[in-house]
Amino acid sequence: MVKRVSVLGATGSVGRSTLDLIERAPEAFEVVTLTANCNVEELAAAAIRTNARRAVVADETCLADLRARLAGTGIAAEAGRRAVCEAGADADWTMAAIVGCAGLEPVMAAMAGGGTVVLANKEPLVSAGELVLAEAKKYGATVLPADSEHNAIFQCMDFERPERVRRIVLTASGGPFRDWSVEAMRGVTPAQAVAHPNWSMGAKISVDSATLMNKGLELIEAARLFPVAPDAIEIVVHRQSIIHSIVDYVDGSMLAQLGPSDMRVPIAHTLAWPDRMATPMAPLDLVAVGRLDFEAPDPERFPALNLARQALGAGGAAPAILNAANEVAVAAFLDGRVGFLEIAAIVADTLARYQPEAPDTLEAVLAVDEEARAVARARVEDCLV
Amino acid sequence: MVKRVSVLGATGSVGRSTLDLIERAPEAFEVVTLTANCNVEELAAAAIRTNARRAVVADETCLADLRARLAGTGIAAEAGRRAVCEAGADADWTMAAIVGCAGLEPVMAAMAGGGTVVLANKEPLVSAGELVLAEAKKYGATVLPADSEHNAIFQCMDFERPERVRRIVLTASGGPFRDWSVEAMRGVTPAQAVAHPNWSMGAKISVDSATLMNKGLELIEAARLFPVAPDAIEIVVHRQSIIHSIVDYVDGSMLAQLGPSDMRVPIAHTLAWPDRMATPMAPLDLVAVGRLDFEAPDPERFPALNLARQALGAGGAAPAILNAANEVAVAAFLDGRVGFLEIAAIVADTLARYQPEAPDTLEAVLAVDEEARAVARARVEDCLV
Repeated sequence: MVKRVSVLGATGSVGRSTLDLIERAPEAFEVVTLTANCNVEELAAAAIRTNARRAVVADETCLADLRARLAGTGIAAEAGRRAVCEAGADADWTMAAIVGCAGLEPVMAAMAGGGTVVLANKEPLVSAGELVLAEAKKYGATVLPADSEHNAIFQCMDFERPERVRRIVLTASGGPFRDWSVEAMRGVTPAQAVAHPNWSMGAKISVDSATLMNKGLELIEAARLFPVAPDAIEIVVHRQSIIHSIVDYVDGSMLAQLGPSDMRVPIAHTLAWPDRMATPMAPLDLVAVGRLDFEAPDPERFPALNLARQALGAGGAAPAILNAANEVAVAAFLDGRVGFLEIAAIVADTLARYQPEAPDTLEAVLAVDEEARAVARARVEDCLV
Repeated sequence: MVKRVSVLGATGSVGRSTLDLIERAPEAFEVVTLTANCNVEELAAAAIRTNARRAVVADETCLADLRARLAGTGIAAEAGRRAVCEAGADADWTMAAIVGCAGLEPVMAAMAGGGTVVLANKEPLVSAGELVLAEAKKYGATVLPADSEHNAIFQCMDFERPERVRRIVLTASGGPFRDWSVEAMRGVTPAQAVAHPNWSMGAKISVDSATLMNKGLELIEAARLFPVAPDAIEIVVHRQSIIHSIVDYVDGSMLAQLGPSDMRVPIAHTLAWPDRMATPMAPLDLVAVGRLDFEAPDPERFPALNLARQALGAGGAAPAILNAANEVAVAAFLDGRVGFLEIAAIVADTLARYQPEAPDTLEAVLAVDEEARAVARARVEDCLV
């Protein structure tokens, strides 16, 4: 049976990996819609290659260029926020890979389509997790995680017997500074922070990986996605990033998913689920890997972990504030405006300074996000004084 | 729903572990039959503790003693080969843990009961695998493996989509001599060979673990139990025995089962399957374990692996001969009659010297086993001349 698929954020890293897999199995997939923010050249080329029905740019000023590139192909060209939101509504399977809060509305709209929605970014679950999952439930949509850790947990989880799960062990690479002292981390430069040892990623997520805030956000996501108590989610530093996460059962069996550090592995899982599809990756050679190490994360050197745990425990607006403040702080760090250790401090202060009501609509989440950014930016300014 | 269980070989290591779990969940299990060879004291005590319906000794000379110990308890006392064979026929779940070829007939009889039969010893699958599995199919019995490796594979295997499995990675501790030279192994004593680094086991299986014949026999078992080609079963030395085995899928995901080196973990899995039950083991602490290592096995130093692979490839009587010759050779080694390196040589020579037709009945398997032992014994005598 051919699966009708749409990719929201088709020109980003996850979108490209998704299209790579789809293009390798043209008999299995029919591409409905591809969206991008403004990279018209790549979007048009991808739409033509995959014979998509529709290409959508979020930025309306790019529509003329998109139309010109698609002229004569029969592929519809559309633009604007509304068109992006509608993109996931009419597919069997939608990859939601739009970065940041811009992806929230399209994810909600995709849920209403009742198909399978694959979450590749953190905001839908961290900032608006309860709303997004309620929407999925309302329309009978299936939520699959594309993040390697959550995808691993999904593969190992017995959803029919969640009461038999004792623990989730979320693995963390530990980032480039796992062995550094606090003193050494004080002087970290943006260039050092974005050089991730195992995964090739964007600057923002690389910094999150260096502070372990990435793992903190994943902790929140895991608590949203899986039927386990937050306290039953443990974080273990596993520098090789081969075991992507583990589910520990009451009988002492632990099920783990292992694989190469290539996003196409979890994406392929979501594309074919509950079946599996071939991917071009060579089988993981454990003998070549040689060894896998495990250590406890250090909460002193990596305070982001406890901040995330606290935000999860507080619930309501706290996870959205954590995420928004972190984005502001990381941007300030990448701009050379604040130091590496100040990222967590800015997040902590923003959480302490801004404690609104729990948002119960998407608009309220977006308002919290905006206000949290303003509070965090003011805190950044304090650093500069 | 209460599960009606029988344990064949209740006084051995696996039988004891099984009873330990059953006794911890008395509300979930009703014990039908316990059997032992001749350890009447332990058998009677276990039958009384678990309120079994029936206790059976294989050795008929022990019946009077058993009767005396069970007098007034209401527990039936029986003896003899026929009674042992009938023991697995009327339970929902039967642990088949009778050592050696003596366990073959009871396993076949248990299959005819149509319940769940848990295989804890190698002979049923290695020596009579095709017959045993055909019997299970005929009567609709469910076969579950209690061996930690096969149990791990079972937990990770998608039986609905076997064509999506690319590989099975069977892990091996490597035994106590994994780092020894051939020269050093030449002088190995029985005491050195039975000191297994990770598992507490009997002498015979400890020697098999030291020669890696244990892994060779497990390779044959895996090929019988799981829908994968023999060439797709890879053996990797993993000295910590934490990852019990791995299933590698076509999409690059590998699913693994990890756990403490305690037989109660896989046994509990078979007892509760498809549900899970609590066990008394502390959760495995990967941080305390620290590291997991992987290396390729050395076929030069451990020729048993290739012997097993060849026997599997040859099929017919070859696996039964491999197993029988190995038992004779290991016994001769434990008696101080042949050297450690001669174990594999005796097996190889027996396989070369004795090449009967494929056995197609249980009697034929037992005849092959007996004849192979005679050939192997003659070969042992050659060593002594």
